[in-house]
Amino acid sequence: MIGTEIEHLIKLISKLPGLGPRSARRAALHLLKNRESLMLPLSQALGKAAEVIVECPECHNLDTASPCSICASPARDRGILCVVEDIADLWALEKTGSYRGYYHVLGGTLSALDGVGPDDLSIPHLARRAGDERVREVIIALNATIDGQTTAHYISDCLQACNVSVTQLAHGVPIGGQIDYLDDGTLATALKSRKAI
Amino acid sequence: MIGTEIEHLIKLISKLPGLGPRSARRAALHLLKNRESLMLPLSQALGKAAEVIVECPECHNLDTASPCSICASPARDRGILCVVEDIADLWALEKTGSYRGYYHVLGGTLSALDGVGPDDLSIPHLARRAGDERVREVIIALNATIDGQTTAHYISDCLQACNVSVTQLAHGVPIGGQIDYLDDGTLATALKSRKAI
Repeated sequence: MIGTEIEHLIKLISKLPGLGPRSARRAALHLLKNRESLMLPLSQALGKAAEVIVECPECHNLDTASPCSICASPARDRGILCVVEDIADLWALEKTGSYRGYYHVLGGTLSALDGVGPDDLSIPHLARRAGDERVREVIIALNATIDGQTTAHYISDCLQACNVSVTQLAHGVPIGGQIDYLDDGTLATALKSRKAI
Repeated sequence: MIGTEIEHLIKLISKLPGLGPRSARRAALHLLKNRESLMLPLSQALGKAAEVIVECPECHNLDTASPCSICASPARDRGILCVVEDIADLWALEKTGSYRGYYHVLGGTLSALDGVGPDDLSIPHLARRAGDERVREVIIALNATIDGQTTAHYISDCLQACNVSVTQLAHGVPIGGQIDYLDDGTLATALKSRKAI
């Protein structure tokens, strides 16, 4: 007895990550109750974004400009490339404000189980970019998971031929973290990588 | 460094119930990765729904038709009115398939704290509908919360003058519920309202 239009809308909303059928119903009702302030602006923003946002051919970031505003920025250090799995990771790093180099978005990690090989990711493209003589360092900022670390090692092997130093993010105790609550792996790594104060 | 269009989109998505800034970012990325299959259809579905869906003047349900398909159905029993707080509750009751009367959506509950009085809800309209001589029974299906029960008592007082029997949903052990895990209030009510087998 829910109308077809509402059912269709709920079905589409429930395809968003983190939303099930019940929360999609709640979201649809919330939208219908806030048509002018939320529903129509969201409809327009979705249409507009789908139209104008393109993938950057350099770093595979998403932006309205091509190349993206990061790749086009002359103020950044062309000597450093930071490899991330996903655009969300790029956003997270940008939010810290402490990185001023360029990025390279892989679009995933190697995974034998899911059948993801090097050619499915932008690894050959990364090797070409790292071959540029201006690039001094490639920072691998992949998740500290099995797939992430496998990919990190594979990339580091691929870049052996290039004249760049390959680094990765430090592992250790998170800022604000309590030692008591940390897992064994993190604690062992933090101990092994200890530094002089 | 996130583009303005994406930031705007994320801000709108994060206004949906149950989505914070981080899940809104995830949802926006998911949408941008599935433009043809999800982003554009969702944009169109939102625009279409905002345009065609109207509130039923009879029961305050939302539908493309006015009066809504429930109020317009001749197969339903005009003698019973079921009072619900929200359209989501109406959908939940319809899904059971075990109610064949009409509905009345209040649009909220009385709440002294939030300054919601009888005139902010559709209670006067309910009293007029219950005054119709064809109506025999008004079922109050409000949440078993303080606000819901206060509203139920208020409505039952309002309908004293009308020639209808006022009932409410039974309270007790939910189907599949384990007695061991039930709260005291539910268990005490279930005991008090015990029935012959």
